[in-house]
Amino acid sequence: MDNWLPTLITATPSEGYDLAVKLARMAIKKTQGDPAVRERLRPDYAENADSLISVSAVVATHFATVAAANAYWRDAR
Amino acid sequence: MDNWLPTLITATPSEGYDLAVKLARMAIKKTQGDPAVRERLRPDYAENADSLISVSAVVATHFATVAAANAYWRDAR
Amino acid sequence: MDNWLPTLITATPSEGYDLAVKLARMAIKKTQGDPAVRERLRPDYAENADSLISVSAVVATHFATVAAANAYWRDAR
Amino acid sequence: MDNWLPTLITATPSEGYDLAVKLARMAIKKTQGDPAVRERLRPDYAENADSLISVSAVVATHFATVAAANAYWRDAR
Amino acid sequence: MDNWLPTLITATPSEGYDLAVKLARMAIKKTQGDPAVRERLRPDYAENADSLISVSAVVATHFATVAAANAYWRDAR
Amino acid sequence: MDNWLPTLITATPSEGYDLAVKLARMAIKKTQGDPAVRERLRPDYAENADSLISVSAVVATHFATVAAANAYWRDAR
Repeated sequence: MDNWLPTLITATPSEGYDLAVKLARMAIKKTQGDPAVRERLRPDYAENADSLISVSAVVATHFATVAAANAYWRDAR
Repeated sequence: MDNWLPTLITATPSEGYDLAVKLARMAIKKTQGDPAVRERLRPDYAENADSLISVSAVVATHFATVAAANAYWRDAR
Repeated sequence: MDNWLPTLITATPSEGYDLAVKLARMAIKKTQGDPAVRERLRPDYAENADSLISVSAVVATHFATVAAANAYWRDAR
Repeated sequence: MDNWLPTLITATPSEGYDLAVKLARMAIKKTQGDPAVRERLRPDYAENADSLISVSAVVATHFATVAAANAYWRDAR
Repeated sequence: MDNWLPTLITATPSEGYDLAVKLARMAIKKTQGDPAVRERLRPDYAENADSLISVSAVVATHFATVAAANAYWRDAR
Repeated sequence: MDNWLPTLITATPSEGYDLAVKLARMAIKKTQGDPAVRERLRPDYAENADSLISVSAVVATHFATVAAANAYWRDAR
């Protein structure tokens, strides 16, 4: 897991969004290190509306960071 | 879903707000990939005040990003 | 609802705050399109302390955006 | 309530913090307009640890805005 | 409590973090003014994982503000 | 615990992320000082999907701060 995040720079906003999703998931991996437990917990959030909204909130915070790091991809249109 | 987000730049704040709504929904799609499950969960949040407020919170975070990307549309009046 | 948000610029911080309240409500309208359902849900949050605090959190996020858009109204005193 | 917020500029960080508290409360007043209901709800949050933490979260978001508006009072020491 | 917060400037990031903790607590003091009630509520959050995470979230928001006020202590190494 | 945080500057985004995790945990240590209690609470959040998402939210906020402090590591690719 050493250098799983070499940069916040992405070619497009779509890729930046995917990076935000990855950033959101990584904190969960680092807090619950057992993949079997994480797999067992998956339906608890993937089939629960409020949990999904909470996941989306975390992604939103990370996307803000990634977007700013990329100067909002202003000329990426 | 490859390049669903080519840019954060929008013509008006209203369009930027709609983009924020789209950004909030996308994390849910990426976490719960099954459209049937998402459809089943819809009343859980669309008819629940607290869930709707949580959705609004996610939109607010994304709108902040989109607004900053557009330099707050300062001359779009 | 086409161009309900022509600008984030307001004359005063008070007006900016009202705009933040409007921005918070709009995501709920866009997620729950039925005015009758929204009306039915109103007591669920308007008479619940935690829900009101959550509403206030969303307003705070939007107010940050509006305030930055207005360069914090530094000479509006 | 017309111009209850003439400016975000305060003389000191302490006053800025008080303004943040005021900003957090105002959204509740604007959502629940009846002072009697607000008074009735008061023990629900003032005697509940999680509610108090949620209030503190809203104040933190507003304080960020006020602090930035005041350029973080860098020479206010 | 008049000028309990003369400045956001701290010598080190560690001190800035402690200030963020103080800022998080102050909103609770200002909302629940009775020290006896606050003392009674303490086990409700200090022995509850979710409450502790919520406290940490508030500290994170304040730390962001303090860190920015200190220009992220870029030369404090 | 005196100077546990000498700087927010890290060599890479990955290290910055680890620092964000550390920052998230520190508020919990400072609020619940007893290591035995913290250990007892661990399964409450490490085996609960919603708690893990909340932890991730706190990390996201701190990561935003660390990333900005490092000017988003723009040339770290």
